[in-house]
Amino acid sequence: MPKKFAIGIDIGGTNLRVALVSGEGEIIRKIKKPSSEQVLESVFESIAEIGDSEFAGIGLGIAGLIDRSRGRIFVSPNLHAVEGIEIVEIMKRKYKVPVFIENDANVAALGEKISGAGKGFDNFVLLTLGTGIGGGIIYHGKLLNVSAEIGHMSINPDGEKCPCGNTGCLENYASARAMITKAVSMLEKETESLLKECCKGSFYKITPEDIYLSALDGDTLSRDILRDAGKYLGVGFANIINIMSPEAIILTGGLIGAWNIYVQEAIKEASRRALKDLFEAVKIIPSSLGDNAGLIGAASLVFDNRQKSTSPTY
Amino acid sequence: MPKKFAIGIDIGGTNLRVALVSGEGEIIRKIKKPSSEQVLESVFESIAEIGDSEFAGIGLGIAGLIDRSRGRIFVSPNLHAVEGIEIVEIMKRKYKVPVFIENDANVAALGEKISGAGKGFDNFVLLTLGTGIGGGIIYHGKLLNVSAEIGHMSINPDGEKCPCGNTGCLENYASARAMITKAVSMLEKETESLLKECCKGSFYKITPEDIYLSALDGDTLSRDILRDAGKYLGVGFANIINIMSPEAIILTGGLIGAWNIYVQEAIKEASRRALKDLFEAVKIIPSSLGDNAGLIGAASLVFDNRQKSTSPTY
Repeated sequence: MPKKFAIGIDIGGTNLRVALVSGEGEIIRKIKKPSSEQVLESVFESIAEIGDSEFAGIGLGIAGLIDRSRGRIFVSPNLHAVEGIEIVEIMKRKYKVPVFIENDANVAALGEKISGAGKGFDNFVLLTLGTGIGGGIIYHGKLLNVSAEIGHMSINPDGEKCPCGNTGCLENYASARAMITKAVSMLEKETESLLKECCKGSFYKITPEDIYLSALDGDTLSRDILRDAGKYLGVGFANIINIMSPEAIILTGGLIGAWNIYVQEAIKEASRRALKDLFEAVKIIPSSLGDNAGLIGAASLVFDNRQKSTSPTY
Repeated sequence: MPKKFAIGIDIGGTNLRVALVSGEGEIIRKIKKPSSEQVLESVFESIAEIGDSEFAGIGLGIAGLIDRSRGRIFVSPNLHAVEGIEIVEIMKRKYKVPVFIENDANVAALGEKISGAGKGFDNFVLLTLGTGIGGGIIYHGKLLNVSAEIGHMSINPDGEKCPCGNTGCLENYASARAMITKAVSMLEKETESLLKECCKGSFYKITPEDIYLSALDGDTLSRDILRDAGKYLGVGFANIINIMSPEAIILTGGLIGAWNIYVQEAIKEASRRALKDLFEAVKIIPSSLGDNAGLIGAASLVFDNRQKSTSPTY
């Protein structure tokens, strides 16, 4: 009888999440820890804590560029600790189960398709809006096996250098990192702002939430930062719409808390830029699973691949 | 017995091409005419001239944004005459055969996959480099049914207005139209250039070929125009590579005649910008079918759909 559960793992720049997930996409138990340099050890410990050896396989979603052929990560700008490790091989040997690997935004897209905001759509693009910007594409109901590094689409060829090597990447203008960099630089120039108070002068501790709350309190700098980031996000939306003609763009990640300023501005900007007939056909909506999407999507790699093949290679 | 031939039609901003194509993708007969305001009449005449009533169906490739659900064109910036016409319905009624419609760059991608430079690749992006820039995406050996309006990806949010409504579109910087606009504007500013001689003072007749030939003769303005356009094309390449991680980018259209300046510059720029591991995995190569790709791809819509369904709706 096939085992009913799989382990879903979501390794991001900030947190590591591990869950036991049923074949129906239900999360049975889950654990969340801060990401650390000792990624593998943390993963092993978490699986032991989940405490169920009866799982059919392991699905990994990792923030970074995946080398599918060798089951490892090429580059992970926000989590160097996982780069180059043959993580799939190591886990296969340890647990003697099939192990699959995907990009974290790709598995989040899968999760939303299985039981979240993407359930009713055959073609959508998911964007993770956090420290960076990630992307996952669902096409004809399935994950498109492409890099989908939408955050590293250049929208300004003469713009600032991005850690990825490119210049003017979308995530340099529209991510949490971009907002904080802008806030710090403006405060250092002694711009008047409520943000000065929120961190007792320690500008580097400012969070996107601080910026959003100050904006709600009428702070001009904070509103400008959110609107500017939103405007550039809208350029990204329009490019996605013109190229992928999706039925929906589904947004997840911490920044969607600032929906009514940041995302609204992005939608407005996209409406001015995208081809009219395509814009009218797209819905721009929030994720319904939040952090669970990646865990459900990662676990689904196990069940999907089991259906495809009765003798997985492991 | 199923009929062995289909009509492939490729309607671009400059030319209209009609061909009788075999199920193996061989062009039996073809006709080329300049595009006109009387598109439908030209198409009917051309089919009559091709002179074989025994065709299994008609495949249309049209420069523009396709409304697949209604078998018509939403917008065609370079060929307004086809906008809004229910062309599929009209042709089905006239010829009593199945009729299919696709974007012209999409059918060119299909043609290259069937019997051209894309034969050996499962995942590639085709770009048509001409008056504008079009795109078609092959994924897992099949056409990705998306808009693929890669020429209308903004690479400069504060750039020039594009006729599509967006600003800073790739095709405003890297197309034949962009090169000619730049040449005319520089010549009007009395910039020294060999281009002054080539059209006896009538700057508006300058072609990309003139620019390329002058560049080969050592003309600085012409080299700068080609290199600048190439640099921006390289930004486009890098964005495509980071998002679609293709095995190849296949280039077609008149501008590939300037390969050793324009495309070489684009490849160099993309190598600096795209994620390293993805760039190393991509081949950037010319089309092998040229203008025939669209005709073969358009005709293939008929054969492919016949395989899928024994009772096509027409």
